[in-house]
Amino acid sequence: MKFTINKDEFLKALLNSSKIIQSKNTDAILNMLKLEIFDDRLEITGSNGEITIKSIIPRYKDDKTLIRDIQIGGILINAHMITEIIRRIDGDEVNFIVEDNSLAKIQNLKSNFNLNVTRVEEYRDIDFDENGTHLILNRNDFVLAISQTSFASSIKENRDVLKCVNIESDGNEIIFTATDGARLARRIINNSENGQTFNVNVPAKTINEVVKSLTDETEIELYINENKVLFKLNNCVIIMTIVLGSYPNTRNIIPHNYYYRLEVNTQDFLKALDRVVLLSIDRENIVKLTMNEEEVTVSSRSPQIGDAIELLQIYKYQGERLEISFNVEYVSQAIRVLKSEEVILSFLGEMKPFTITSKNDDKVIQLVTPVRTF
Amino acid sequence: MKFTINKDEFLKALLNSSKIIQSKNTDAILNMLKLEIFDDRLEITGSNGEITIKSIIPRYKDDKTLIRDIQIGGILINAHMITEIIRRIDGDEVNFIVEDNSLAKIQNLKSNFNLNVTRVEEYRDIDFDENGTHLILNRNDFVLAISQTSFASSIKENRDVLKCVNIESDGNEIIFTATDGARLARRIINNSENGQTFNVNVPAKTINEVVKSLTDETEIELYINENKVLFKLNNCVIIMTIVLGSYPNTRNIIPHNYYYRLEVNTQDFLKALDRVVLLSIDRENIVKLTMNEEEVTVSSRSPQIGDAIELLQIYKYQGERLEISFNVEYVSQAIRVLKSEEVILSFLGEMKPFTITSKNDDKVIQLVTPVRTF
Repeated sequence: MKFTINKDEFLKALLNSSKIIQSKNTDAILNMLKLEIFDDRLEITGSNGEITIKSIIPRYKDDKTLIRDIQIGGILINAHMITEIIRRIDGDEVNFIVEDNSLAKIQNLKSNFNLNVTRVEEYRDIDFDENGTHLILNRNDFVLAISQTSFASSIKENRDVLKCVNIESDGNEIIFTATDGARLARRIINNSENGQTFNVNVPAKTINEVVKSLTDETEIELYINENKVLFKLNNCVIIMTIVLGSYPNTRNIIPHNYYYRLEVNTQDFLKALDRVVLLSIDRENIVKLTMNEEEVTVSSRSPQIGDAIELLQIYKYQGERLEISFNVEYVSQAIRVLKSEEVILSFLGEMKPFTITSKNDDKVIQLVTPVRTF
Repeated sequence: MKFTINKDEFLKALLNSSKIIQSKNTDAILNMLKLEIFDDRLEITGSNGEITIKSIIPRYKDDKTLIRDIQIGGILINAHMITEIIRRIDGDEVNFIVEDNSLAKIQNLKSNFNLNVTRVEEYRDIDFDENGTHLILNRNDFVLAISQTSFASSIKENRDVLKCVNIESDGNEIIFTATDGARLARRIINNSENGQTFNVNVPAKTINEVVKSLTDETEIELYINENKVLFKLNNCVIIMTIVLGSYPNTRNIIPHNYYYRLEVNTQDFLKALDRVVLLSIDRENIVKLTMNEEEVTVSSRSPQIGDAIELLQIYKYQGERLEISFNVEYVSQAIRVLKSEEVILSFLGEMKPFTITSKNDDKVIQLVTPVRTF
């Protein structure tokens, strides 16, 4: 096995495939990258057990030769070590030569590294088959749907499905849902290819890793089956395992009517929350919203430190007087991902979950459960 | 006590005096800032026990009124809380009113904070007297001297003096020295005011905090006595306690001759070290330098991972063949602070401490002890 390769392209692919590898894996094989050189490409595969990224460097790109002097073959090599060597090495090209399937020589004019390597057969079997439901999605729609929902999934919960984003389609729309039990986020996007139904739970942490890899795509191609989701991107294939088990039925949780409605300027409201929350650090970031038609305030109180009250400057309110308390983190996160200049909070009562929606986009909804007012 | 103050100037002073306050102090008083308003200024004092910073905001600056509506008085207030409130509050000005020496109201048109405060009498007594040896130093000389020495002080050592930079003057020159036992750094600057002798140990950590505060000064005025060093800066006074005990005698440690001399290009040498050190991560960053007139290499070897060798491109060497091993961190740090395009390494033998010097500045010297070559 040997090849001479463009250093910058090699580094980019190494970083892409190794970014999901944790610093210390109990399974030593997961500290390795699989490097396989073919006549027309180099494949670099990294995995953390839940997500696998295969980066592909073509031999020729546009008019440029990226790889030359190829002798086909494959080995496993320490991911951190090879990535750091290529990051620090000088020059435009680097030679990579494997002797006896046991030692890789990485060389240029002045640097000479010999790294112990492992036989390629020792890597995990990873199923790269393209089977199951085939979808093509607009990249921006997909990224928006994940960013507007995944933060609401649970990080501590014992039930693995609550650590996921649920992605479900009845054939027309694709619905993204995440909930940790105290809040819920939902986004709907169109499915241009009608008639395909599916329902999968994808871990929020890994789907966010996938989103980070979506840089120059305008469309993304994916295959969903009962075991995995496969993303086919430009020069990169990503496989993620899905979480089995049925997602809680959240269809009827979201109220469709309201008795109180507050429309606020996003920045004005977020900045007021950001200030009053300072005085609730010993009360788990709980603040109180007090609304009537004359005045809307947010306030907080800490027995040791003091209290704070903010008058909202820009708002519209419909309804009787209402006091409601909530966790600022939940409300701030929900508002931020809407990316709307104005947001609408709709309430049924002091102890009923309330919704936060965007003024101009009815395909996304955030739900937050209040806490008892102090 | 009350005042209305320019918000940006207030925030700048709060940040300056609170930056040394740790997040959790066993002595609760050290979580506080002392705010004292006089007819002509506001003083904000913060301390961590080892270093005290008093920031001063004048009532008038140039043609601008920074503080108005003054009623003199003083209180202690939670440093984190007041700083975060002023950081987040909107508007150009903020009102600060204390009622009954127990509650501070911080207000503008829309925000209203009430913070519990403590009586000013409960703060520690801090000696701000300007006595002892009086010095005026060029700011850049002083900052360079600290940056070229303080990194070499010990961080683990039980002996407190080794955590210090020793600053000594015989009346002509001021000598800055730091050592952790395995390396030593020394810088000499001129003392324009002749005849003043002193010898103090200042903790490296706190002197680096002082350096961070030196932003717009061209000269710095200081007073050194047996208990403290007092820095009188633009709108800020800093007091640091000094460490008692005699500093080790290092005068005769630095060799004045050599048998082997290597001159290298700083960047070429540092980059080579940075690469080979990758293969010595399980050997405490030890690499080997092998020199003769035909070739100079740096190399490393790890039984598990592999080995690396680098050919230096740009060098001049005088002497017989020599192999010497050292900790890369020690050598890299010593070279970097010299800020010289070429550096000179001078050796007496394989197991003798060697010096690293700048080609164009004979007032600074770095000494490193080698380790046994593998």
